[in-house]
Amino acid sequence: MTTERQFIRDLQAQFPTLHPVKIGIGDDGAVLDVSADSQQVIVTDLLLDGVHFDLNVTSPFLAGRKAVAVNLSDLAAMGCRPTAAFVSLAVSQARLHASPDFLRDLYRGIQQMTEEFQFSLAGGDTNSWSGPFAINVCLTGVPFSGRPFLRTGAQPGDAIFVTGPLGGSLQAGRHLTFMPRLHISEWLSRNVEVQAMMDLSDGLSIDLHRMMEASRTSAEIFTSMIPIHADVPAEWSADKRLAAALSDGEDFELLFTVSESAAATLQVAAIDAAVSLFQIGRVATGSGVRLIDLSGNNRSMDVTGWQHGL
Amino acid sequence: MTTERQFIRDLQAQFPTLHPVKIGIGDDGAVLDVSADSQQVIVTDLLLDGVHFDLNVTSPFLAGRKAVAVNLSDLAAMGCRPTAAFVSLAVSQARLHASPDFLRDLYRGIQQMTEEFQFSLAGGDTNSWSGPFAINVCLTGVPFSGRPFLRTGAQPGDAIFVTGPLGGSLQAGRHLTFMPRLHISEWLSRNVEVQAMMDLSDGLSIDLHRMMEASRTSAEIFTSMIPIHADVPAEWSADKRLAAALSDGEDFELLFTVSESAAATLQVAAIDAAVSLFQIGRVATGSGVRLIDLSGNNRSMDVTGWQHGL
Repeated sequence: MTTERQFIRDLQAQFPTLHPVKIGIGDDGAVLDVSADSQQVIVTDLLLDGVHFDLNVTSPFLAGRKAVAVNLSDLAAMGCRPTAAFVSLAVSQARLHASPDFLRDLYRGIQQMTEEFQFSLAGGDTNSWSGPFAINVCLTGVPFSGRPFLRTGAQPGDAIFVTGPLGGSLQAGRHLTFMPRLHISEWLSRNVEVQAMMDLSDGLSIDLHRMMEASRTSAEIFTSMIPIHADVPAEWSADKRLAAALSDGEDFELLFTVSESAAATLQVAAIDAAVSLFQIGRVATGSGVRLIDLSGNNRSMDVTGWQHGL
Repeated sequence: MTTERQFIRDLQAQFPTLHPVKIGIGDDGAVLDVSADSQQVIVTDLLLDGVHFDLNVTSPFLAGRKAVAVNLSDLAAMGCRPTAAFVSLAVSQARLHASPDFLRDLYRGIQQMTEEFQFSLAGGDTNSWSGPFAINVCLTGVPFSGRPFLRTGAQPGDAIFVTGPLGGSLQAGRHLTFMPRLHISEWLSRNVEVQAMMDLSDGLSIDLHRMMEASRTSAEIFTSMIPIHADVPAEWSADKRLAAALSDGEDFELLFTVSESAAATLQVAAIDAAVSLFQIGRVATGSGVRLIDLSGNNRSMDVTGWQHGL
C-alpha cells in the first residue's frame, strides 16, 4: 500500500511549482501570488457517501454543510478568510427520485456556511450517474493579515497550542456540525506572530507528526494538558480517553505554534478576548513526537490517527 | 425533471454574488477581482466513470487527460491561460488492486496537459471508496490580455464563428484526445475584439441557444457553412450529417462572435496565421436560432444537444 505521504512526495517530484503558484502540494492549501502584493489560498476536499458521511443517517443539509465546513477549516488553518466556493456534485437519479428535495436541502446546508462567513457560491458542476453521492468543494481565500500560515514554520522552543478539546467527534456527530475556527484564526492573525498552523482533521497524533516533519522539528507533548472533549465517555480509563483525543480525528480544531515569549502574553490576551486556547507542549530539535506524563515518564507517540491508504 | 437551466437560475437567486466575485454561476467560469487591476478566472468540472468516459475501454491516462482538457477548454472559452490545477479523486481499492499503475497512468495523462500548457498541479484530494471512479478538476487562469471573454456580449450584426469542424467526437473518441483551443484563444485575444465566447461541450444546437439567451440576441446560421468533422460518416445523408454536427456534443471547439467590420479582416489575418476559423452565421435581434439553407429555406433550430437533466 502506498501511503498518502509517499503519494504526495511522488506528485511533488512529478509536478514542478511554477509561477504564480508559490506553495503547491503538501500544505492545507496552495498559495498563489495573484498580484505583486497579494496572495490567494486555494483549498479543496472531496467528500464521499459512506466515507465522510452516511446518507442513510446523515441529512443532505448536514452533508452539504460538512463539505464546505471542512474546506473552511483548511482556510482557517492557513489564516485566510473565504472569498468564493466551487461545488461539484455527482448524484444518482434514483436518489433524486426517492428524495425530490435532496439538492435543495444540500444547498441549504452549503448556504448556512456561505451566509455565516459571507462569501459567494461562484461556480460548480452537477452531474447524475448511477454511483453513490460525491461532493467536491474548492474554496478560494485571502489572508486575514499579511501572509498565509504554513505547517513549515515551527521553531525549537515554540509553544504548541490547540483551539479546543479533542476526541469523540465521529461518534458524537460533531464532525457534521462543528464551526470552522475562522474567527480564532482571524484573532490570532491580528494578535500574535503565528509560526506554524494546520487544522486537526486526521487526529492530533498524525497531524502533529506532519507539522513537525514539515518544520523539521520535534514536539514534546504534556499528556495532562491535552484537552479531552466531553464527547469522550467520562467512564473510560485515562489511557483510553487520551487515545481518543490523540487519534479519533475529525476534530477540526487548529494546531499552531508561537514563540515562547509570545505564548505568555497570548494566553492572557486570549482570556480577555474569550478565545479558547490550550497549550499542550513545546517544539524541540530533532524529529518525532514525545508524550510526557505527570510523573515525567516519556514515550514516543505512535502515529495512530487516520492515515489515508491508497 | 428540473432542467440544468432552471437549476442554475435557482442557485443564482439563492446565492448572491459578493466581492471579490465579479461573475459567478452561469458562464463557463467565474471571474474574481483579485486585485485592483487584475482578474482571475476559475473553472471546475467533475468527470465520472460511465458518464464522461468508460474505464472498461478508456485508459487511466486518457481519463486524466480529458479531466484536465475539458477544464482547459473552459479557460480557452474565457480567453484565459491556466495558472494552477487542483485534482480530487475517488477510486475504489478494488481498482487499485486490479491495476496497481492506475494512479501513475492517470497522473501522466494530467501531466501531458500541465506540460503542454505550462502550469502547476498545485493541490487536490485523493480518497478511496467502494464506488466508481470520479475525478474533479478545478483550474485557475488569467486573461491572455485585458479582460475575460463572456457569453453575454454578442451584438446584433456580429459574425458568428467556430474554430473547427463539428460532430462525431464521442463515437470516434476525439473527446478523449482533443487539444483545448488555448492557442487560438490567445491569438484571438491579441488580434480582434471578441464580443462573446464559449466552448462547444454539449453541441452547437444547445450551446448557441445558451449564448444567444445570455446575450439577449438571436442567431441566423447558414447550414452550408457549418464545418462537419471527418469523424461524421461521409455516406450519411446531408440531413443526418448536419444533425451530427449540431447535436453530437463534446466538440470542444470555441464558439464566438465579432463585429461585422472586424470579421472581414479577421478571416484574412487568420489565414496568414494558419488559425482555423469558420464563419457560420450572424447575430440578430430577438431570440432563438434560425437555420437557413442554400435555397433560403428558414427554420427554427430545435435544442437537440445534450441537455443535462437533474
